[in-house]
Order: sequence, then C-alpha cells, then structure tokens
Amino acid sequence: MTETLAIMDNDALHADRLEAILAAVEVGNADRLTGLLEPLHAADIADLLEQIGAARRRALLAMWSGEVDGEILSEIDESIREEVIESLPRDVLAEAMRELDSDDVIDILEDLDAPQQEEILGALDKSERAAIEAALAYPEGSAGRLMQREVVLAPQDWTVGAAIDHLRAAQTLPDQFYHVILIDPRMKPTGYATLGRLLSSKRDVRLDAILEDSFRTIPATMGEADVAYMFNQYHLISTPVVDDAGRLVGVITIDDAMNVLDEEHEQDMLRLAGVGDTSAMSDGALATVRQRLPWLVVNLFTASISAMVISQFQSTIASLVVLAALMPIVASTGGIAGTQSLAVAVRALATRSLTAANARRVVLREMAGGLISGVALALILGAAGVIIFGDWHLGAVLGLAMIANQVVAALGGVLVPLGLHRVGLDPALASGTFVTTLTDVLGYLTFLGLASWMLM
Amino acid sequence: MTETLAIMDNDALHADRLEAILAAVEVGNADRLTGLLEPLHAADIADLLEQIGAARRRALLAMWSGEVDGEILSEIDESIREEVIESLPRDVLAEAMRELDSDDVIDILEDLDAPQQEEILGALDKSERAAIEAALAYPEGSAGRLMQREVVLAPQDWTVGAAIDHLRAAQTLPDQFYHVILIDPRMKPTGYATLGRLLSSKRDVRLDAILEDSFRTIPATMGEADVAYMFNQYHLISTPVVDDAGRLVGVITIDDAMNVLDEEHEQDMLRLAGVGDTSAMSDGALATVRQRLPWLVVNLFTASISAMVISQFQSTIASLVVLAALMPIVASTGGIAGTQSLAVAVRALATRSLTAANARRVVLREMAGGLISGVALALILGAAGVIIFGDWHLGAVLGLAMIANQVVAALGGVLVPLGLHRVGLDPALASGTFVTTLTDVLGYLTFLGLASWMLM
Repeated sequence: MTETLAIMDNDALHADRLEAILAAVEVGNADRLTGLLEPLHAADIADLLEQIGAARRRALLAMWSGEVDGEILSEIDESIREEVIESLPRDVLAEAMRELDSDDVIDILEDLDAPQQEEILGALDKSERAAIEAALAYPEGSAGRLMQREVVLAPQDWTVGAAIDHLRAAQTLPDQFYHVILIDPRMKPTGYATLGRLLSSKRDVRLDAILEDSFRTIPATMGEADVAYMFNQYHLISTPVVDDAGRLVGVITIDDAMNVLDEEHEQDMLRLAGVGDTSAMSDGALATVRQRLPWLVVNLFTASISAMVISQFQSTIASLVVLAALMPIVASTGGIAGTQSLAVAVRALATRSLTAANARRVVLREMAGGLISGVALALILGAAGVIIFGDWHLGAVLGLAMIANQVVAALGGVLVPLGLHRVGLDPALASGTFVTTLTDVLGYLTFLGLASWMLM
Repeated sequence: MTETLAIMDNDALHADRLEAILAAVEVGNADRLTGLLEPLHAADIADLLEQIGAARRRALLAMWSGEVDGEILSEIDESIREEVIESLPRDVLAEAMRELDSDDVIDILEDLDAPQQEEILGALDKSERAAIEAALAYPEGSAGRLMQREVVLAPQDWTVGAAIDHLRAAQTLPDQFYHVILIDPRMKPTGYATLGRLLSSKRDVRLDAILEDSFRTIPATMGEADVAYMFNQYHLISTPVVDDAGRLVGVITIDDAMNVLDEEHEQDMLRLAGVGDTSAMSDGALATVRQRLPWLVVNLFTASISAMVISQFQSTIASLVVLAALMPIVASTGGIAGTQSLAVAVRALATRSLTAANARRVVLREMAGGLISGVALALILGAAGVIIFGDWHLGAVLGLAMIANQVVAALGGVLVPLGLHRVGLDPALASGTFVTTLTDVLGYLTFLGLASWMLM
C-alpha cells in the first residue's frame, strides 16, 4: 500500500495538491507554488498546465516561468505549447532547449511558426543547430524527424573490452541508450549488441560475436506509423536509422515509438467519430466547433438524401402513418451494425491483420455474419410487428428490410475502409459518414419500398 | 532503398512469399515450406497463421508443427492459440514453454482451459512451475501477471565494479534487461542504475551514486491499464514490481506495457462501436455474430423507444407527411454530434486529460460548442426549409429542434462517459447506445413536438 500512496503523492492530478497549487497561484505565493510543483514529474506539470484553463495558466506562468525546463516543454501538449513558449523569458527558453536531445527539440520546433523557430534555433550552439536543421530536412512525420542523432557506435572489429573502455572515456553519452551499434568503415550499421550482453561478456570477446537477432534498420524516410508498427510487432527497444545510402544517421527508441502508437490510435478514434485529427482538453468551444462542424455539415447533406428517399414515399406514409414510426428502427440498427463492422476493419487495417491474404475471407465472413444477425433481428422485429399490429405483412416487411440492411451494413463497414486503404487514403477518414449514409438511405428505401409493394 | 527492400523481404505479408508458402502447403513440400518460413520473425509467422484461415492453418501445422517454438506461441493471437497448441506434439510444446520468460508463459497459460494448463505446467521444471503458479495467484490483468520474475539486482552498497563482476559471473541473465535494481537487506528496491551509466562509470563508484531520477515501483496488484499509463506518461523503460510488503517480486519492461496500451486502445475502439472486447480476423461468422448481436438487440429495443415517441405524433404526421421525411435529419445530425463528443471524452478519460480538475470546464465547453454548432446548422437547415417549402414556420421548427438536439448531444457525449467513469465503469462501455438513444428520442420529440405546436 505504501507504494500506491507514494505514486499518488507524485500525481499532479491528486485533488489535494491541485487545490493547494491553485490556492498558491490565487494568493501569489511563489515559494509555496515552487514547493508544490517541484516534486512533480515534468509530464504531470505539463498535464496540469493543460487542464487548469487559460486564465489560471497565465497566472501560474507569470509566477513560475523561470522554472520551466526543457523536459516540461517537451511534455506540453501542442495545443498550449506556443502560448507557454511565448510566456517564457528568452534566457529560460534558450537554456531549456539546450538541455534537450535533438529529437525533442525537433518535436517542439515542428509546431511553431517561423519567428519562434528562429528564436529557438538562435539559442542553440552552431553544431547543434546544424544537426537540427539537417533533421528538419526530412519530411514531417518521418523516421528522420523522430530519431535522435546522439548514437553510441563502435567499429565492427572491436572487442567488448575496447567498447567498454571507449564508453568509460566518453565525455557525453545520450541520456538513454540500450545498444552499441556496430558500423562498417562506410558508416553502415551491421548489427548491435545489448548493453546487457556487453556487460556480461568477457573483455576479449569480439562485439560481432554477441550480436542480437532482432537487428533491423529503419530508412529515415519511413513514415512514423510504420516505425511504431515495427517496434510493436518486433519488440524492438532501439533501432538504427539510415539514409538513402544505408549510412547510420540516428537512432529511434521505443518510448518515442510508443508515443507515436498512442497518437495513431487517437487519430483513428477521432477520425472514425468525425472529429478533426487532434482534440485537446484545453481547446475552447470555438476550437471544438472548428474540429467538428465540417463533418456535421457533411452529415446534414447526406441526411438530406435520406429525406429525399423518404419523400418519394409520402403517399405510402400518408395511408399508413405507423410506417413513419417504424422506419427509423431498420435504419438505426443498420447504422449500429455498420459502425461495428467498420471499427473492426479499421482496427485490423491499423494492426495489419487485415491484408491481401485474408481480405476476401473477411468480406465473406462479414456478409455471412450480417445475414445471420439480420435473420435473428428480423425474427424478433417481425414477430413484434405481427403481435403488436396483428398484420403479418407488416412483420414480413420489417423482417425483410432488416435482413437486407444488416447485410449491406456489414459489407459496407468492411468494403469502405478496404477501398480507402487500397487507394492510399486513411481507412478511418470519412468511413463513418459513408457507411451510415449507406445504411440510412438503404434502410429507408428497402423498408418503404417493400411496404409500398406488400402493404398498399 | 536497400533497407526498405530488406524489411519487405522479411515481411510475412509480402504477397509473393505468402503465395509461395501456400503453394508449398498445397503440394506438401515440407522442405520448401521450412525454407520459406525460417527467415521470418516469429511475430510474422504468428500473423500468417492467423490470416490464412482454419483449413490451410491445419494443413500447414500438420507439416510444420515440429518447428513451432516458444516465441511463435507467445506471438500467436489468443483466438487461435488453443487450436495451435492442440496441434503440437507434446515434446515440442514442452520445449517451447521452457524457452520462454515467465511473463510469456503466464500470458499463454491465462487463456487456456485447465487440462491444457496442466499439460504445460507439467512440462516445466519444478522451480519454474512454482514461480508461474505464484504469478498466477495475482488477479488477471494485474501487474503481477504482466511482470517477469527474472530480475537483475544488487545490494545498494555495491560498487560499479562489483556489479559488473557479478554480471560477468552470472550463469543466466534475462533476455532483455536495462537496469540493475538496487535493494536493501529486506529486498525492498531503493533505486536503479541504467546499464549505460554502469558501463560509463568508474569501477570504484558506488551504485547509489549513479541512480536514475525516473525510479518508481509498481504494486503487483496494480491494474495493467494503469501500468501502461505510467510507462507512457513517465517514459519508463523497465520498472520493479513489489508485493504488499514492498519487496521486489519482478520487473515489467516497456515492450509489455506497449502491448497493453495497444490492447486497451483496441478495447476502447471496439466497445465504443458496440463490439465485444476482442475481435480477431481469424474469427468465423458465428463468432462475429456472438460479439455483435447483443448490442444490436439492445439497439432494437432503444430504437423502439424512438418509434413509440414518433407514434405519439401520428396525427401531426398524417396532416403534414413531409415531417416524416425531415425528422431523421435532426436525429441523425444529433447522433453524429453525440458520437464526436463521446469519442473525445472517452479518449481524454483514457489518457487522463479529463479529470476532476477540468471536468466542469469541459462540460461547459461542450455545451457552448453544441450551442454554436447547433445555431450554425440551424441557419443552414432552417434556410433550406424556408426556401424549399416556402414556409418560415417549418424553417423555424427545423432550426430550433436542431439547436436543442445539438446541445443535448454535446452534453450527453461528455456526461455519460464521465458518469460511467465516476461509478467505476468503463466509460466506453454502452456509452454509444446511451447517447444515440438520447439524441434519437430527443431529436424526434423536439422536432415533432415543435411541429405540432407551431404548424398545426
């Protein structure tokens, strides 16, 4: 239990500490504020800044901006980073940036506008600045942007002893490193040894005798989603990045890959729901409207298609008004089935478990599953229709429309993302709107069409 | 480019290799099959087995089951693991399990039924078996199940040189380890040193002089979702796990935490869409029906509530049938807005960016956002209503219903998951059904209610 408490005590979101922090800001007690913030992890301070709202954030930073360091800056969400950077004295900002590894500096620079970028680059040493500018030359979202340039390497003919002596003598080493990368005379990585193997091997053993099987290299132009997939699939911890000529240019570590994986998931989830790519709790109401209104307007138009379909059957509805009450059941159950099939397909495409190898089988499975669900739902709904309205024709119309719409929903839910994926688009983007439009329009059409034919 | 090709060549899903593998299975050429599978990573072989369908999987395993090793077994998806294990000769299974670290053995055992568990436990050494049984005593989904028992530790008063000599002399070390954990005489972890610091420090430096700031411990009973959050939030690489008395019992590494994070995301996404907790591409049609039909049936009943609401307005619809065509527009746009607000809230609760500190502000923001979106959509839809039908009353009804439903949708999308979270339930579970029922029922009610009042 002690440990649970210890963790809780360090948690920025612990209610007591939060209240105490806000109280200290309120009364302008800078010493108390520093005392309360100091034990917190940079990631928790960043969360705190994001969560307390703009006015309180400004007040807190006015009292405490001298203490903001590189780690906090790199943890802060993009949505408030610019605001925080603007509040910092120049020397604090310069010092903060000098502390960071190159990948973190790039991560911060990417989201800033040109004058702020210049200010930060100006604060760096000449060599550091050149390294950052080289990395910025890689496309956004590529491995080249994600990697850190600080690498620990050794010629492939070295022994364990030589490598250890070299590490002991090194002036600066990266904050975190897990492998010694072996390179050939042209700087091409040829393998790596874990520090564990290095430590447990005899000094005269050659490094190339203790290499790991897991060795792979990542081209600097590879997309970050593919990088995250590789780390997760192959349980990589750190992996060398190479340029077009195969020369070592940097290294990516698993914590950065985990972060990318997390962001990719966020994007999938938000895109499936028709929200823009990012959404932060610090966003104001207008920012959320900007993220969400576009898809709402699109939906307004697609819903109008349903309305036009329904309006073709006005005379049918006028002569049997209960149809108007029943028609949303078929459409809405189809919408749910489409959403289910869609979520499964989008997730499977993201984890690469839906591929050319099984696409045909999965599509057939969805069709069969839709048919079975459709029949089951048709029996329930059809029976209810017969019992409540005493009209087996109406029950048959409900049941048949349900079956047709369930099959369409299951098929649409897998074919739409597969199609988008095949043409190189994100399967999550706009899939939801496509599929629900499909199930709505066809739901109303089959139900009212069958009703006109069988009941009129 | 060479590297890209090299990666592709090792990719199980590369179409040429896949075809060659299936052809080798077809003609029963075991040598060719082994030659094609051997260069692949265990994770890719596992994916291949999952994707090729049950009949081909049986044929492949009949020819190749002797080659299945521990790594492949631990990569295989739960959905087909039992099937694969049943196909293995006993000695192959025993050998495979002996190769694995304790956390991987537990991961495999968890999903098997008792006789299969017994068979596997029987294949292990006595001491290994005891260790596994001890870990199985921790609740499913806890840190105790996730950890590996193989740890590298040192008394806190040791020097760097003593630790290195000890590592050199060790008979067995874990496959992967990144820290040496320091313990006090009662086995309580007091800090850790990275292998990088160990390697680059002088032999006579005391270990407690090179400890990392990032040190934290995890109680064995902590839930795995919290573990994954800690790793992601604090950039941990490996972390000691302690029992109730604070004694070291194991260690969790980031690759396992990344895996949990990935599974948690899958669960959120599938639950939001109303699919059961897991869904595998190897599932047959009946398995998908079992995962999805329950929520479809629930939706059938909630949709009936909408139908009942609509049926209260039969006389209104009978006298103005165009209302039946227009009413789904308001309900469906509300459904989309609810889904947007819901996805944002569920994601924010999962990443702990929606907390007691900002819940009130976020709820107010959603309400304001809903109002702004509602007014924007009302202007478009209302204007269309006036222009198309030449009836400004109808335009006003459409617009007012839209505004009301957008506000309800935005509020419901955040309040429902917040409420579920507060009472200790998963915010993603059933939220979608709640919120769309809400927006459907209120969408129809406000639209038809206002129409009865203003147009009749």
